[in-house]
Amino acid sequence: MEHLEYQEGRTELSAMGQFALIDRLTDGFARHHKSTVKGVGDDCAVLGTGKKKTVVTTDTLVEGIHFDMMYTPLKHLGYKAVAISLSDICAMNATPKQVLVSIAVSNRYSVEAMEELYAGIRTCCDRYDVDLVGGDTASSRLGMVITTTAIGEVDSDKITYRSGAKMHDLICVSGDLGSAYSGLLVLEREKVTFQANPDFKPDLDSYDYVLERFLKPEPRTDIVELLAKKEIVPTAMIDVSDGLASELLHICKQSRCGCNIYEERLPIDYQTTRVCSEMSKNMLPVSNALNGGEDYELLFTIAQKDYEKLKDSTEVHIIGHITEEGTPAVMVTPQNSTIELRAQGWQAQQ
Amino acid sequence: MEHLEYQEGRTELSAMGQFALIDRLTDGFARHHKSTVKGVGDDCAVLGTGKKKTVVTTDTLVEGIHFDMMYTPLKHLGYKAVAISLSDICAMNATPKQVLVSIAVSNRYSVEAMEELYAGIRTCCDRYDVDLVGGDTASSRLGMVITTTAIGEVDSDKITYRSGAKMHDLICVSGDLGSAYSGLLVLEREKVTFQANPDFKPDLDSYDYVLERFLKPEPRTDIVELLAKKEIVPTAMIDVSDGLASELLHICKQSRCGCNIYEERLPIDYQTTRVCSEMSKNMLPVSNALNGGEDYELLFTIAQKDYEKLKDSTEVHIIGHITEEGTPAVMVTPQNSTIELRAQGWQAQQ
Repeated sequence: MEHLEYQEGRTELSAMGQFALIDRLTDGFARHHKSTVKGVGDDCAVLGTGKKKTVVTTDTLVEGIHFDMMYTPLKHLGYKAVAISLSDICAMNATPKQVLVSIAVSNRYSVEAMEELYAGIRTCCDRYDVDLVGGDTASSRLGMVITTTAIGEVDSDKITYRSGAKMHDLICVSGDLGSAYSGLLVLEREKVTFQANPDFKPDLDSYDYVLERFLKPEPRTDIVELLAKKEIVPTAMIDVSDGLASELLHICKQSRCGCNIYEERLPIDYQTTRVCSEMSKNMLPVSNALNGGEDYELLFTIAQKDYEKLKDSTEVHIIGHITEEGTPAVMVTPQNSTIELRAQGWQAQQ
Repeated sequence: MEHLEYQEGRTELSAMGQFALIDRLTDGFARHHKSTVKGVGDDCAVLGTGKKKTVVTTDTLVEGIHFDMMYTPLKHLGYKAVAISLSDICAMNATPKQVLVSIAVSNRYSVEAMEELYAGIRTCCDRYDVDLVGGDTASSRLGMVITTTAIGEVDSDKITYRSGAKMHDLICVSGDLGSAYSGLLVLEREKVTFQANPDFKPDLDSYDYVLERFLKPEPRTDIVELLAKKEIVPTAMIDVSDGLASELLHICKQSRCGCNIYEERLPIDYQTTRVCSEMSKNMLPVSNALNGGEDYELLFTIAQKDYEKLKDSTEVHIIGHITEEGTPAVMVTPQNSTIELRAQGWQAQQ
């Protein structure tokens, strides 16, 4: 019997990024079944032997890390737990069908609190035509951990991986970027004020859009439908959970290419810009767009031949293009200088 | 902004059993897809429209609740997290194919510790021909939470639910019962001794079987194969995770029947009996068998016509039979008295 903390020669989790860690841990696993088309390394695993493929993904939300009960309504939390899994299904160009939700919960939560959470789960399931098919509930000593598994369906010839982007392909993103993180900044600011003065009633009305973006993200099933209607199969796709820069680097690495994106083309909502100016004169909206995360928009690349089909869409923005292998991933500023994109690494919490 | 603890009129989670809670929370969910054959309420969900069905299950292990790092080797823990999910696949008479593992982990764990955990996951995947297809890793503030999703395959005409048991069917169980809980009792005893005297070196050799049963359970894929070879489709099946009594009550409730099991027929290993006699003269091995849990054996019912095919199996024990609707679930003692079976309820941890 021994304590883990006293191991000699230990490597701290914080010394490794999340993606490097997962690569290291899952390296060397054998594939036993031909029905496993794609394992670890994309938004979803791809399974099946027929024309229709099944895609599966799993996501975990941890209290105190991914959500703060001080400002997270339970109904929104249940909605979000399902929504972010469905977003991964969308990122494969697939249609979500079922979810399973596992919850570990301490006795700090009441039955009524759990009902609120499930009301949110149900609202999201109904909104996106998804069936809840599993609901494990376990005890936890501290706080809540929610793990959602989502299952979707897609024809073999429409599956979109991160690895298919080609030189000259156009880079597209749905919706706007940085607003979810701006919502989080507002909530954190109000929390500090509230803790200093519990009688304080925050006025959040003028931040409604960014707050909703953070607390109640929507998976872009509508974009998957739009692409099908326009008969476009993206060459690569990923959802924006960790920030545009990080996701672009995933596509570039897995597609063996570089990219140019243009700062002035990044879609940024005016509330995002306003929150940034309130927070600090040094906080640039473009930084939130690049690194904010949790937008759950779809980032994808299309062949140039498909440009005409999308150029008039109000929901899809063409922000740049793919460059050849060996070139970096860069953002071009309005002054025509280039900034190399870097991912904000995930770090284990202290 | 408010604190959950101060809600008025709250119902404590501890006031409800786990199964009643899940029933209450998942009540009222609509089914949107005909590909959802079975949702919440069995060992797995059943999905698909063709002859081959997909079965899916999710399980969560929480540090401090389901495992104690004082005496749980990480490699065993990784193995167990996968094994118990595969056991749920077996309980549908299906063959496991893929798993996804989500881990929330605090910085108390090193990269090397995570590698140990994954070595156990890999060993179990290789042992049971299962592909790891998803591996999410998140931070946690305190301890470790592991959620495993397992996916399996089964022909439509072989799927076995909890609900198909018929009057006069024979009740069968694989392996032996109560040994995993006996292993836990030994570990808890040694932990107390170790805490009182850290120089103490526990001698665990003579408990090897019960310890392995607790620390490294095996899903009974061999029983699923045996049933296929003998051309038996059980009428009902469940895996023994919460104890024989609890699982029998699930089958009786969902199959609308009662049952008689015979105390002298319950398979109990001699190490289980020895541990009980060491612990207390009042601890009966049969109590461990009925209520111990975590055995991960298969409990199933077969039609009487299949009796001849199984009667000589050393791995399957016929312990009783199904009785008509409205009769209770009882155990008959060697003295021919009857004891009504009760489930040991799950309680939220304090």
